[in-house]
Amino acid sequence: MTFEELTQALNEAMDQEDTLAIERLVAEMQPPDLAEFVRHESPEVSLKLLTHLPLEERAEAFGYLELEKQCELALKMTEEGLSQLFVHMNSDERADLFNELPEERQEGILRRMAQDEREDIRRLASYEEGTAGAVMTSDYVTVPAGVTVGRALDIVRQTAPNAETIYQIYILDQAQQLLGTLSLRQLILAKPEAVVDGLMTTDLVSINVHEEQEEASRLISRYDLLALPVVDDQQRLVGIVTYDDAMDVAEEEATEDIHKSASVGPLDEGFGKARITSLYRRRVNWLVLLVFANILSGAGIAFYEETIEAYVVLVFFLPLLVASGGNAGSQASTLMIRGLATGDVGARDWGKLLSRELVVSASLGLTMAATIAGIGFWRGGMDIAQVVAYSMFAIVVVGSLIGMSLPFMLNKLGWDPATASAPLVTSIADIVGVLIYFAIATSILDLG
Amino acid sequence: MTFEELTQALNEAMDQEDTLAIERLVAEMQPPDLAEFVRHESPEVSLKLLTHLPLEERAEAFGYLELEKQCELALKMTEEGLSQLFVHMNSDERADLFNELPEERQEGILRRMAQDEREDIRRLASYEEGTAGAVMTSDYVTVPAGVTVGRALDIVRQTAPNAETIYQIYILDQAQQLLGTLSLRQLILAKPEAVVDGLMTTDLVSINVHEEQEEASRLISRYDLLALPVVDDQQRLVGIVTYDDAMDVAEEEATEDIHKSASVGPLDEGFGKARITSLYRRRVNWLVLLVFANILSGAGIAFYEETIEAYVVLVFFLPLLVASGGNAGSQASTLMIRGLATGDVGARDWGKLLSRELVVSASLGLTMAATIAGIGFWRGGMDIAQVVAYSMFAIVVVGSLIGMSLPFMLNKLGWDPATASAPLVTSIADIVGVLIYFAIATSILDLG
Repeated sequence: MTFEELTQALNEAMDQEDTLAIERLVAEMQPPDLAEFVRHESPEVSLKLLTHLPLEERAEAFGYLELEKQCELALKMTEEGLSQLFVHMNSDERADLFNELPEERQEGILRRMAQDEREDIRRLASYEEGTAGAVMTSDYVTVPAGVTVGRALDIVRQTAPNAETIYQIYILDQAQQLLGTLSLRQLILAKPEAVVDGLMTTDLVSINVHEEQEEASRLISRYDLLALPVVDDQQRLVGIVTYDDAMDVAEEEATEDIHKSASVGPLDEGFGKARITSLYRRRVNWLVLLVFANILSGAGIAFYEETIEAYVVLVFFLPLLVASGGNAGSQASTLMIRGLATGDVGARDWGKLLSRELVVSASLGLTMAATIAGIGFWRGGMDIAQVVAYSMFAIVVVGSLIGMSLPFMLNKLGWDPATASAPLVTSIADIVGVLIYFAIATSILDLG
Repeated sequence: MTFEELTQALNEAMDQEDTLAIERLVAEMQPPDLAEFVRHESPEVSLKLLTHLPLEERAEAFGYLELEKQCELALKMTEEGLSQLFVHMNSDERADLFNELPEERQEGILRRMAQDEREDIRRLASYEEGTAGAVMTSDYVTVPAGVTVGRALDIVRQTAPNAETIYQIYILDQAQQLLGTLSLRQLILAKPEAVVDGLMTTDLVSINVHEEQEEASRLISRYDLLALPVVDDQQRLVGIVTYDDAMDVAEEEATEDIHKSASVGPLDEGFGKARITSLYRRRVNWLVLLVFANILSGAGIAFYEETIEAYVVLVFFLPLLVASGGNAGSQASTLMIRGLATGDVGARDWGKLLSRELVVSASLGLTMAATIAGIGFWRGGMDIAQVVAYSMFAIVVVGSLIGMSLPFMLNKLGWDPATASAPLVTSIADIVGVLIYFAIATSILDLG
């Protein structure tokens, strides 16, 4: 059955309170699908559905829920039930949940945990949000240097039930420092009596625990890793980031960049679930700031009040000209911001990109000027046609150059280039557009 | 050594023509890093550097190059050399390259290939770009139903050198139909004499070969898969899509969506490498189309020419008001488009989201109206203050509602919601903004 069919069948079974059918359907669903279903249910119903699963799978499905929902459910569970769930959750997910719980709940859980689990939760929960440490898991397989392949495989078999991945094995020295890595593929192809040290890869890609999670995601994507080892300042292995977490991080980052492109601040929760107050807060700052930027456009217009009074027809072309500059500018800035984010272009490419943008924007400007000249002639004769055509060309070129330069300059200053959002670039291009337009109009129409 | 240090050392070695050092450094570099280095070199130098690697690793590094660069190098290689490379490349990558080569080159390569390789290339190269078939690989491990775990492990060991992943094993019936899957983890934990049929997972997530590659990427991300099996219309297994390809697809898709948000069409090549003509083509259409949309704004202004002549001060507030509507609208559309793309919101959420947006935008509108009322009073007295405050409120609310509704409506019509780009939403909000502003002005200032 597809997800839609399962959902429908489960809804029907729930309406009919057919417990047997509910149990069967819940067991048949993939954990992410069950999580998706549970998202839309009340905490009570959600808990009831999850209880139909054995503990192991319950913990897995639970881990697919959004953190907010997890927290909501956790608060309705008994301390005993929550502790059992904690034992079976992935170490990275439970540390995230732990951080969201109120203090007395945290203490209750820690009391019920074995010593090593307790330390693991405390340690993973201590890393700052957004760092590699905060997304890493501590469930991985390590073997000491010097063991044979056969012994390593035994260790893999023993650790497998608790490891998030057993496909990369990490070889440590006595000080827990990371010496090398072996894939399970290499291991099962090797002779059982061979020593791991002779087989392991020592050209390691790893990350420091305090670096940003985006960097972890980038490294995993760049080197096509299954898992990235995370080390502390003494090069001791403290965790791994797995490819599936890297995919989630990459998606989150793309969402954040896309939101920034429209001057929306980062939302903590998904857009679907976001509260009115948090949506308001993430949107209002830039909107108000941009009002002040746009006052400058107004001031520019006010400065040319006499020109406007003499030729009211100029106002007809105003929105069109300034919008074109803004549009060309946000195209240029968006291309640049994404290029910088994916590493497709870098600071060193500045000169080359600027000259290319000059040619591209001049071509665009000429096309746009040709488009608009006829309308100018029709509305206001030859003079107006000239004014709007020249203005269009200049505005598109200048708008594009501003659009492509701003992210670059922000990057140079160590700011996030994505701050050069479409609304910001559009506002700046608007101001410049107004000034260019009326300056050209004043000079051609001889109003100076 | 870090990538930067290796790059610098390699550059120095190349300047000094120190072949030994070059060989050592090339061998030390990770294949993606070597590819990154080679990107900026001439074809001749690139080929020379790659030749320092053994065939296997050369094929791997080659696969990390952009398709355009691969093609450029392939055309400079001998038929013999290229054929050898083809044998060692991943099946999905070589099919992509094959499709880019001129016909006589294609024939030359096929002639030099063994029968089964030839068929594999032909088959993979035949799927339409953008489908699951076009990104899948045919290098995976299958075992027939009914074999024991011990036998399955033997098959894994035999196939391992040519398989892209051995961590998922697919169990097929005699008609090559996919019955189930086993992970290598399950396999090495099971008793050697157990039969795979009793262990395998039959709740399979799979995709049809003709479905879109985005869907493959979404499934891999949603179910945290290492590899997604691809089946034909008869449910026969024809390939797998691996997680690393899914990450690349997800990045490409995010880039495309981000570009669309600024009305830039999809670029075939990366932004850094894009040609002037293709950048021009991807940008000009929407720019020109939007000019015509903006003419409507101009027409709106022209319609109220008398109002403007009576109160030129109104023009001062024009850019600010229409820009605010556009900004609020593009915030709303961007949030909605990304929400739809990640599956965070769906068509069924429409009513709930609309009422939430109404509250959010009304709050934003009130804040903005309060911000602007004072300036209105200062520039034009009480009447103007009222006009701009009322207008601001109405424009922000209407702009936001347009912004959030447009992607939804496009989605309903089966269009890509991302077509509701910031420039498009801004242009529509501009037109509406002009009309609202002057309608309110005309009525309050009693000019009707």
